Amino acid sequence: MAVQRTMDKKDLSTREKWREIIFESHTPDSRLFDVILLYAILLSVAVIMLDSVEKIDLRYGHILSVIEWFFTIIFTIEYVARIALSEDKRKYILSGWGIIDLVSTIPSYLSLFVHGPQYLLTIRILRLLRIFRVLRLNSYLKEARILGTALKASSAKIIVFFGVILSVVIVMGTLMYLIEGPAHGFTSIPRGIYWAIVTITTVGYGDLTPITVVGQMISSLLMLIGYAVITVPTGIVSVELAQHKPKGAVCTECGNRENDIDALFCKHCGHPME
Amino acid sequence: MAVQRTMDKKDLSTREKWREIIFESHTPDSRLFDVILLYAILLSVAVIMLDSVEKIDLRYGHILSVIEWFFTIIFTIEYVARIALSEDKRKYILSGWGIIDLVSTIPSYLSLFVHGPQYLLTIRILRLLRIFRVLRLNSYLKEARILGTALKASSAKIIVFFGVILSVVIVMGTLMYLIEGPAHGFTSIPRGIYWAIVTITTVGYGDLTPITVVGQMISSLLMLIGYAVITVPTGIVSVELAQHKPKGAVCTECGNRENDIDALFCKHCGHPME
Amino acid sequence: MAVQRTMDKKDLSTREKWREIIFESHTPDSRLFDVILLYAILLSVAVIMLDSVEKIDLRYGHILSVIEWFFTIIFTIEYVARIALSEDKRKYILSGWGIIDLVSTIPSYLSLFVHGPQYLLTIRILRLLRIFRVLRLNSYLKEARILGTALKASSAKIIVFFGVILSVVIVMGTLMYLIEGPAHGFTSIPRGIYWAIVTITTVGYGDLTPITVVGQMISSLLMLIGYAVITVPTGIVSVELAQHKPKGAVCTECGNRENDIDALFCKHCGHPME
Amino acid sequence: MAVQRTMDKKDLSTREKWREIIFESHTPDSRLFDVILLYAILLSVAVIMLDSVEKIDLRYGHILSVIEWFFTIIFTIEYVARIALSEDKRKYILSGWGIIDLVSTIPSYLSLFVHGPQYLLTIRILRLLRIFRVLRLNSYLKEARILGTALKASSAKIIVFFGVILSVVIVMGTLMYLIEGPAHGFTSIPRGIYWAIVTITTVGYGDLTPITVVGQMISSLLMLIGYAVITVPTGIVSVELAQHKPKGAVCTECGNRENDIDALFCKHCGHPME
Repeated sequence: MAVQRTMDKKDLSTREKWREIIFESHTPDSRLFDVILLYAILLSVAVIMLDSVEKIDLRYGHILSVIEWFFTIIFTIEYVARIALSEDKRKYILSGWGIIDLVSTIPSYLSLFVHGPQYLLTIRILRLLRIFRVLRLNSYLKEARILGTALKASSAKIIVFFGVILSVVIVMGTLMYLIEGPAHGFTSIPRGIYWAIVTITTVGYGDLTPITVVGQMISSLLMLIGYAVITVPTGIVSVELAQHKPKGAVCTECGNRENDIDALFCKHCGHPME
Repeated sequence: MAVQRTMDKKDLSTREKWREIIFESHTPDSRLFDVILLYAILLSVAVIMLDSVEKIDLRYGHILSVIEWFFTIIFTIEYVARIALSEDKRKYILSGWGIIDLVSTIPSYLSLFVHGPQYLLTIRILRLLRIFRVLRLNSYLKEARILGTALKASSAKIIVFFGVILSVVIVMGTLMYLIEGPAHGFTSIPRGIYWAIVTITTVGYGDLTPITVVGQMISSLLMLIGYAVITVPTGIVSVELAQHKPKGAVCTECGNRENDIDALFCKHCGHPME
Repeated sequence: MAVQRTMDKKDLSTREKWREIIFESHTPDSRLFDVILLYAILLSVAVIMLDSVEKIDLRYGHILSVIEWFFTIIFTIEYVARIALSEDKRKYILSGWGIIDLVSTIPSYLSLFVHGPQYLLTIRILRLLRIFRVLRLNSYLKEARILGTALKASSAKIIVFFGVILSVVIVMGTLMYLIEGPAHGFTSIPRGIYWAIVTITTVGYGDLTPITVVGQMISSLLMLIGYAVITVPTGIVSVELAQHKPKGAVCTECGNRENDIDALFCKHCGHPME
Repeated sequence: MAVQRTMDKKDLSTREKWREIIFESHTPDSRLFDVILLYAILLSVAVIMLDSVEKIDLRYGHILSVIEWFFTIIFTIEYVARIALSEDKRKYILSGWGIIDLVSTIPSYLSLFVHGPQYLLTIRILRLLRIFRVLRLNSYLKEARILGTALKASSAKIIVFFGVILSVVIVMGTLMYLIEGPAHGFTSIPRGIYWAIVTITTVGYGDLTPITVVGQMISSLLMLIGYAVITVPTGIVSVELAQHKPKGAVCTECGNRENDIDALFCKHCGHPME
């Protein structure tokens, strides 16, 4: 019994150590683990990309395939380890990162039966977003949070904005379908809407272009709308960012947070700034 | 006489109830009505879109046509009911929403005689903008109003801006017509203007492109103008938005409206913020 | 002698009256003159545009030609009258508007000898900018002035910005000429630069596109640069506009110009705002 | 010995004078040197560009070649002189400008053995950035510094932003490779990523376009993302620029730096502004 308990304890402590390495990032070991993972992700995504180039596949396909499987096995072991080591297994599996971790391995196994899915492994790149944690880029995380807050604060305005864009695009796409018609490539309303989106966003592939004079007039209008209208969300986001941004130096005397960055004295209580 | 009066009263109260359901949105019934309408609009627009795809039309055209007529009849009944129930019928009919409601049904009847107009029914999507009312998204309405105020406040600047753009586009379109000429696709000045709009808005379809060296130089200039010039309305709108935006928390003591959102004390009177 | 003097006086007063009509805009007569001129400009530009469309020219060319000459003669008379009536003739002739007035008539006469120049008459559209004066749109003029001041204030930053863009475009254009070469359409460095401008401004005609892998990588980089870099002048102009904009309501008591638009009391002296 | 020393001294003073001419810009001689260099750079870049146009090369190739060599020799002499005259030779050679100076001459010599490298001489245009120094455009330098500071301050946000863009582009490129496939031009994942960058930046060449319905839906989404997302860095840069910009006139009495540019009195102490 005593032996068993000791073993349990030792087991627990090993478990604890591994849990720290995999889930934390403030010990040398866990940082090393993260950095290795980082390169593994980058390398595996590069290999998948190269493998999709036919010329390279014909020549080095075998080697690339081996490397891919090597990384898949590593990531599978890592995934299993993460499940085994997490305290609330269910929570990890169903969390965003848990799903991404799973989706980063499954396509390899599917590719044993069907051709193609292995390319979906590029989704592993999303794991790279953990780079922020790895490199302890707290300031980056903070910036990301400010961005997030600003976007969230302006979400109502942005939804209104996209509601309007959507309506414009549907009405315009329909008009063009009626004016230009299948003879000029506008074979259906959805295709007309696709054209309207290509136009209003100023992408302008040129795979569908207005041929008739009326069509070109409507297009011109739509382009000018798109050109003018992009200013609105830009303004929205700018204003939000300006508001959520810390305004400047904080006075140690009166706590005023609104002093200019280059102020020498607090502009409210006159206390010298540090 | 008394019976007649009672009937009138009952009639009036039914009328009143229906008026509430259709025009208001703060009772459960009226909200239900709005939500049903919402799905009806979305579904009917989707059906019209699908119907315009030839493959789908060939196979399911009959069913889609039946669904379309079902919705048209519903919307027609709704339109008639709205007229019957509104107090100032003339005002409703001539209002923006009244016209959209009408235009959302007419094309179906026209399509009995001519092919095509039924697709115009996608204009029903504009009715979706009522979604804001349905879902009592007051904050969205407020945002839309701020946007509207900011745009209105900057309308003078924006008109000046588009006046300049228009002049540039006409002069550039003429130049390209003379330089490139019909041989390179610039068959007329209006077509040259169409090209100039495609270029200055950075859409760049590529259906008309400069071939001569001089034409390419003028195009390059126009692109840089367009690239630089978009900054102006963006700046205008940003500044207006910044100005029309409530600046921050209002102090209950001194009424100062300029406190930062995260301020603990009013920055003018020192009163604690709530 | 007395008669002569009276005639002179009468002559002078007629002259004076006409001078007022043509150059001023605050009497009913002069406003009427401006409005007629406005429609004359719009009509004549429309006629020139239509005339450039071959189909229309073939059918209505004769009529359009007559109308064009009618307007040319009117504008010529107007130009001569402006010279005759202006006090400092030299100054008017050499002024911006004087040159535009002249260039708005000359091409017609040139077209008697050569084909083509009459289309340059669309430059008359620039005269439309006088619309601001005609319609006494003082607020528009003021806005235009604010825009002008903001752009002038940021001109140094904008020149630095375009200097950098120019360098990037020349270096990238050269690289693509070397990498893609004449076989892929990059026949010379100037053509490579044209491509780089088309790309960095996100116009993207598609008349020249990278075919090689290295070329596509460089293009991707250039696109991302263009996409990121547009933010800079936008920011510059926004900030300038924000600074040159009147900050808000002026207090009648203390003259503080910085009150919020919706302020009830002056935020510095507490005087109620009007 | 005495003679030797005198010679040394004279030598030193000549050296000193040349050093001043080449490296400084506040004496008439050194400014003249810089202006000549300026025109030499502009001319030599123009010559290289013209030389790359086949038609011009065939006709004037010999003359252009002579001019190119003339400039190359001048720049080589200048480079050698700069090394000889600089106090810390190693530092100059390894500095940014030193490397650009070297790269501005080497390709000419390489072109004796291989065809092509001479075109790389357009990199000389980078030397033009010295124009700011030459023309003593201090205000430009200051603006450039403000821009630099603002960009540096927002670099963390911008890196987060480009990290997200990169992930989106890789995932979208993979999806399109799987959906559209080689038959529609999406021959590999890297090519899909190239397409995604062309689309998200709204360049839209149109060399690769989605053909399938699903592909067009994904494209539409990507375009809207690109269209919406450009607002974010714009907002970031605007806010930074607004913050790093001097806020207004400084009061000589109380040192308040926040007065409006057009203020007549300091808004905090009431002292008249100068």
